[in-house]
Amino acid sequence: MLIAVDAMGGDLAPQEVVCGALRAAPDLGADVLLVGQAERVEPLLNQNGACPPNVRLRDASEVIDMEENPVRAIRRKRDASMAVAIQTVCDGEAQAVVSAGNTGALTLLSKRKLGMIGGVDRPAIAVTIPTLTGCALLLDAGAITDCKPQHLAQFAVMASQYVADVMGVAQPRVGLLNIGKEDYKGNELTREAAKVLDGIDLNFIGFVEGDDVFAGELDVVVCDGFVGNVALKVAEGLGDLVVELIRREAGKSMRARLGAMLMQPSFRRIRRQLDYREYGGALLLGLQGVCVKSHGRSDAVAMGNAVTLAKRSVETQVIDHIRESCARL
Amino acid sequence: MLIAVDAMGGDLAPQEVVCGALRAAPDLGADVLLVGQAERVEPLLNQNGACPPNVRLRDASEVIDMEENPVRAIRRKRDASMAVAIQTVCDGEAQAVVSAGNTGALTLLSKRKLGMIGGVDRPAIAVTIPTLTGCALLLDAGAITDCKPQHLAQFAVMASQYVADVMGVAQPRVGLLNIGKEDYKGNELTREAAKVLDGIDLNFIGFVEGDDVFAGELDVVVCDGFVGNVALKVAEGLGDLVVELIRREAGKSMRARLGAMLMQPSFRRIRRQLDYREYGGALLLGLQGVCVKSHGRSDAVAMGNAVTLAKRSVETQVIDHIRESCARL
Repeated sequence: MLIAVDAMGGDLAPQEVVCGALRAAPDLGADVLLVGQAERVEPLLNQNGACPPNVRLRDASEVIDMEENPVRAIRRKRDASMAVAIQTVCDGEAQAVVSAGNTGALTLLSKRKLGMIGGVDRPAIAVTIPTLTGCALLLDAGAITDCKPQHLAQFAVMASQYVADVMGVAQPRVGLLNIGKEDYKGNELTREAAKVLDGIDLNFIGFVEGDDVFAGELDVVVCDGFVGNVALKVAEGLGDLVVELIRREAGKSMRARLGAMLMQPSFRRIRRQLDYREYGGALLLGLQGVCVKSHGRSDAVAMGNAVTLAKRSVETQVIDHIRESCARL
Repeated sequence: MLIAVDAMGGDLAPQEVVCGALRAAPDLGADVLLVGQAERVEPLLNQNGACPPNVRLRDASEVIDMEENPVRAIRRKRDASMAVAIQTVCDGEAQAVVSAGNTGALTLLSKRKLGMIGGVDRPAIAVTIPTLTGCALLLDAGAITDCKPQHLAQFAVMASQYVADVMGVAQPRVGLLNIGKEDYKGNELTREAAKVLDGIDLNFIGFVEGDDVFAGELDVVVCDGFVGNVALKVAEGLGDLVVELIRREAGKSMRARLGAMLMQPSFRRIRRQLDYREYGGALLLGLQGVCVKSHGRSDAVAMGNAVTLAKRSVETQVIDHIRESCARL
């Protein structure tokens, strides 16, 4: 198996991307193809001793920037690392692609090159989030705004299959994010989507609210891409606020400072538990191939986890299973 | 000035509502009219010594439950405490009403009885949220889902006036919640609303993202009621998750337990800072009168703050100012 990695994607590329791939490689049980500007990537390959034998490099002369307009970028930069990496999957050379680069460009390029599963319109971004009992999958995290009810139904079916295959959860519990649990609550989209979901063979438990997202009683949280993106970033923002408030408190008295010092390892563990990067990145669901999107700020740990997630996704044949589930829709 | 308080509204009513009113009364500089079932409210009036002379009781035989269908409830329960309390404002007897009761019923009843400001369709719920530098106002928090661009523009104008008058902020910075800062990002609603907001005399700083909400560089965050409700509840859910993770960590080792003990006062201050109840409740904006909605789980502290907020809103004549601002729209 070969995993193609966009070595130039992400705020910390190529340094952290290459480092992550080198870290993951020895125990991966698959080969890694780093795609990017050879003159920048090559010097990084031997940074931690000899380059593992299962890592190789493919030159690609251009880079799509994080803030670039996606449509314009993919039209102009035919030899971008991201495009070349995805192409290796199209060509059957690699079985999966990983990128921490420009989300819009990745969505457009992977849709165009890999193609969509029948009945699915556009790739959705499925993000793993921490909960009180482990983790859950939330989608869409921002790829498809202005969703229609059938989009939300597709999200539910695809994510349910993904959680069953890749996370090993039997009968994943699927909730539809809403502003109340009662039938009459919500907007037009959620009320219509609930009717569609009620008629599908899924473990659909109905409407859930924002505070249920982290409570650990759901495996899949389905929502419009606008709502999902806001929800994830609001949670990130509140996390930052809490960290800052704790820091300020620790500066107020000797007692608090000592307490904070003693709790330092605990705080570190909690931050890691809340950290998106630990969970290996998001899968773009709906594509005819495995495409893992890492967070733009991914470091080596995150990139390593993303590569591992890509490998597991290929192994479990989740794409084939999603295709079969969607055919039944 | 007379403030009418729905003594039966909220999960902890009438006990905590009455207690909150009694606490706020001595320093309020206004009279309080508790409205509710006399046989249940009267015994609570002397619970902390003699009832303050500026608190009195109005009997209302019925109660709208928190989970009741709002439309049915207001049709059937004509003598509900909430309805009678709002009626006192209609009649010019009271100048403001406060309730922690059923949000849907409060929205419908206050709209029907107090009427809307010209050009505004339905009351929006404006909630005060904590930020790194103090606080900000987020609206709508769930009253109006499926908003149109002009709704978001109305929210911006009303909230801007409210923050200027009641919170004393000159030139409030208004952000429109979106999933990216660039022009082309977002859903149809936000892109259209941005165009409307650009043409209005406001300190409109453009699109903001979920992680900007708590960052302290905004005074007003404008969004659709569905998005706002999800955002607030997601933040609440993440807060609960963090608290639980800290509790678990504190149980893992002596060191962590000691650290948590030392940080106990700090944690308590942080929780208070993050607590919606400290901020006195939400204003229903767009009505021809002052109507404060306290959180359903409000305790005596929250109710006391809500009564104080109602009084400040009357004093500053914010409703008249909002009416003038909306007339210019």
